[in-house]
Amino acid sequence: MHPIKIDFSGALEGAIGKESGITPSELEAVLNKARDIKIDFPFLKLPQDKKTVADIQKTAESVRCKFHNMVVLGIGGSALGLRSLAQALLPPYFNLLDSKSRIGLPKLFVCDNIDPDYFGAMLKIIDWRETCVNVISKSGKTTETMAQFYIIRDILNKKFGVRGWKDHVIITTDATSGPLRAIAQQEGIQSFSVPQDVGGRFSVLSSVGLLPAACVGIDINGLLVGAADMVERCKTSSIEENPAVMNGSIHYLMDVAKKKPISIMMSYSDSLSFFSDWYAQLWAESLGKNGLGPTPIKATGVTDQHSQLQLYMEGPNNKILTILGVEKFKTQVPIPTNVSKEFSYLAGRDLGEVIHAEQTSTVKALQQVGRPVIGVTLPEMSARSMGELLMMYQIQTAVTGKLYGINPFDQPGVELGKKLTRELLSKSSA
Amino acid sequence: MHPIKIDFSGALEGAIGKESGITPSELEAVLNKARDIKIDFPFLKLPQDKKTVADIQKTAESVRCKFHNMVVLGIGGSALGLRSLAQALLPPYFNLLDSKSRIGLPKLFVCDNIDPDYFGAMLKIIDWRETCVNVISKSGKTTETMAQFYIIRDILNKKFGVRGWKDHVIITTDATSGPLRAIAQQEGIQSFSVPQDVGGRFSVLSSVGLLPAACVGIDINGLLVGAADMVERCKTSSIEENPAVMNGSIHYLMDVAKKKPISIMMSYSDSLSFFSDWYAQLWAESLGKNGLGPTPIKATGVTDQHSQLQLYMEGPNNKILTILGVEKFKTQVPIPTNVSKEFSYLAGRDLGEVIHAEQTSTVKALQQVGRPVIGVTLPEMSARSMGELLMMYQIQTAVTGKLYGINPFDQPGVELGKKLTRELLSKSSA
Repeated sequence: MHPIKIDFSGALEGAIGKESGITPSELEAVLNKARDIKIDFPFLKLPQDKKTVADIQKTAESVRCKFHNMVVLGIGGSALGLRSLAQALLPPYFNLLDSKSRIGLPKLFVCDNIDPDYFGAMLKIIDWRETCVNVISKSGKTTETMAQFYIIRDILNKKFGVRGWKDHVIITTDATSGPLRAIAQQEGIQSFSVPQDVGGRFSVLSSVGLLPAACVGIDINGLLVGAADMVERCKTSSIEENPAVMNGSIHYLMDVAKKKPISIMMSYSDSLSFFSDWYAQLWAESLGKNGLGPTPIKATGVTDQHSQLQLYMEGPNNKILTILGVEKFKTQVPIPTNVSKEFSYLAGRDLGEVIHAEQTSTVKALQQVGRPVIGVTLPEMSARSMGELLMMYQIQTAVTGKLYGINPFDQPGVELGKKLTRELLSKSSA
Repeated sequence: MHPIKIDFSGALEGAIGKESGITPSELEAVLNKARDIKIDFPFLKLPQDKKTVADIQKTAESVRCKFHNMVVLGIGGSALGLRSLAQALLPPYFNLLDSKSRIGLPKLFVCDNIDPDYFGAMLKIIDWRETCVNVISKSGKTTETMAQFYIIRDILNKKFGVRGWKDHVIITTDATSGPLRAIAQQEGIQSFSVPQDVGGRFSVLSSVGLLPAACVGIDINGLLVGAADMVERCKTSSIEENPAVMNGSIHYLMDVAKKKPISIMMSYSDSLSFFSDWYAQLWAESLGKNGLGPTPIKATGVTDQHSQLQLYMEGPNNKILTILGVEKFKTQVPIPTNVSKEFSYLAGRDLGEVIHAEQTSTVKALQQVGRPVIGVTLPEMSARSMGELLMMYQIQTAVTGKLYGINPFDQPGVELGKKLTRELLSKSSA
C-alpha cells in the first residue's frame, strides 16, 4: 500500500507569492532550528507494545462475544481518538445497522459530555444486559467521567447485584495511582493501564483508543503497522523528507512570520470529519499557552464550501488550510445520464469524481487568491493509513511545541476552571 | 415563558480591563453608527407568512401519515438550519428510537455532503417505500443537491415507475426560475417556494427549514412565535435594549478595535451544538468578504473544556467567546451519594447542576485572565426559545454587515470554485 502523501508546495512562495508563501530562506532558518529537536517522544513506542495489544485483542474478543453495546465513558483525549477511529473505520451509520449488517459487532456509544438530556436518553435506550462499559480516565479524577461512572454503576448494581455489575465494566486508567485505579483494585474489576508518560491527547494508540476500537472490530494491528511506518519515515536524516517536521515548521512559520494564527483542517471525506476534531484538540491543548499558539478549526468538504469557503476566499488572509483527502473511496455511486441540460457535466459521473473535482477546484481557487494550502492525501480509508496520519500529527505537534519553546505535553490553563467547579459544587452543597 | 437573556458585561472594560474590554466611549461611538442602520430586512417578515405555514402543516401531516423516513437533500443554508432545529428540538438519539418512542414520527436524514461512502450507505439502509425526499435548492442549480436528486430519482423510478416516484418527492426552490422549478412544473411534483429576497443562510424560518421540521414533528408555530417576539424586541427605540444590535456592535468592535478576529460559539448543551454550526455559516458567509470578517468557531461545553479551553485561557488573547446555555434541562440525572472521598462534591448532585457549575466556572476563569465573554441563556430548550435565538442572530448578522460596510447577503467568493469544478468535470468527460 502507498504511504500517505503530503504536498507543501501550496504554502510556498512559488505558489502564492512571498507575502503569504514561505520563502526558501525562511524555511531554511526554521529547519535549522528543527534539526536540533530530538524526535524522541514517549508516544513513539506505543506501536511496539505487543504485550498490551495481545491483552487487548483477547479482551475485545470476549467483549464481542458477550455484548451488543459498547459504552465508552471518557472526555477529551479519552474520547476524540476513538471517535476519529470509529468515524473513519466503521461502516457508515454503524449504530443504525441491524446486527447482521454489523456482522454481530457491538454498537458504540462514546459519552464525552454530561448534558443530562442526552446522557439521560442514552441511559434509557441501552439494554444493560447486553452492554459493556469502558471507563477511561488517565488520572482517574476526571469529574465528568466519574460522575457518569457512578450513575451507571448504580444502574448496573441494581440490575445485576453487588457482584454481577463488575462483569459489565472495564477500567482504563493509570497503572498504580488515582481513585479509578483504587476502585479497580478494591472491586477486582478488569482494567488496562495508560502508560504514565503518555498524556491523554497522545494516547489514541495506547489502550485508551485501542481497547474500545478493537471491541467494535477495528483492525488495531493495521493501525499500529501504519503508525510504526510513520515513526520510521520520520527518522530520515533528510529533514525535507520528514513530513511531520516539515508540516510543523511550515505551520509555525505561518503563525509567527506570516500573521496567520488560524489553522483549518478541512477533510474532503465524511470518514475523516472526526479526525479534524482530534487534530483540533491535539493542536489547541498542546500549543495554546504562554500567549502563543495557532487556533485550529475543523471543516468538512464539500459541505463547508457552502458555509466557510466564502470567508477563506475573501476574508482576512490570516489562515493556513490543510486539505485532507482520500484518493479512492470504497463505494461507487454513479449519477444517471438523463439529467437536465444545465447538469450535463454531471451525467454519468461517479460521486467520487465529483467530490475529487470539487476538492481540486477549491485548492486551485484558494491558491489563485493567495491563500496557503497544504494537501494531505490518504491512498484509501484504511486502518493503516489512519495509523500513519495519527502518528504524523502527534510527532508534528510535539516538534512544533519545541519550535514555539513551550511544553507541548502539559495543560496548566484548565486547572483554574476545575478548581472553581469543585469549589462551587462543594459550597452549594453545604 | 421568559425571553432569552443576553449578558454583555463580560465583554466590557469593567469586567476585563480596557485592553480587551470595550470602553463606554468605544461603545457609544459604534452605537451611534448602528443607530442609522434601518432594521428592515426581508427575512423579518417570515414569521408572518400564515398562508405558507398552513400549507406546510397540511403537507407535513400527510407526510407523517404516509412515511417513516424523511430524507432531505440540501447543503449549506438548505441544511444547517434544519440540522440545528432537529438537534435542539427532537428527542436525543432520534433515529435510534423505535417507532413507538418516536411517536410514529419519521426518522430524519439530512444529506449535506456527497462522500460516496456515506451517501451510498444511506441509500442502502433506507426502505424507499416508506420514504419521503425533500429536495432543497433555492437556485435549483446546486451541484451536490442535484447530483443526489438524480441518483435518488433513478432509484425511485425503478422501484415505483414513471408516475409513482413523484409521490415520494417534494421540491423546495425558487417560485418561478431555475432547473429544479422546471422539473417540478414538468413532472407535476409537489413543491414549495423560497421567497426570492431571502438568501439560503437566512431561510431557516421559510419553507426551507419549516417543511422538513414540521414533517418530523417540530413545533413550527412555537418557533415562529419566538421569532416574531424577537423581531418586536429588536424594534425598541432604546438601542442598549436591542440585543441584536448590541451583540453585533460588540463583536464588530472586538474584531476591528480590540484585535480579536476569532469568535467562538460555545454551547453548554448538546442540543445547541448544531446551532453553533448554523451560526458559523451565517457569520462566515455573510461577513467574510473584502478582506474583512471575523472567523467563527464552534465549541461544545463541557466537552471542549478538555480540548479547546487551554488555548482560550492561555493562548493569544485574540478571541471573543459566546457562552450559550440553557437554564433548565428536561431530564434529571442524579449522581448517587456513595462515591469515593475525592468526589464528595459530586455526591447527590444532578448532572444539570454539574454542567451549570462548570459553565459558571469556565466563564469566571476566562474573565480572571481577561478574556471577553458574552452570555446567552435560554430559559429552556423549546421551539419558542429557538425561534428567538435564530432570529436574533440573523438580525445581528445583517446589522454587523452594515457596520463593516459590506453586503451581508451575497457570497461572491464561492463562484470561482464552482466554475472550476464545472470546467474540470466537463473537460475530463470530453
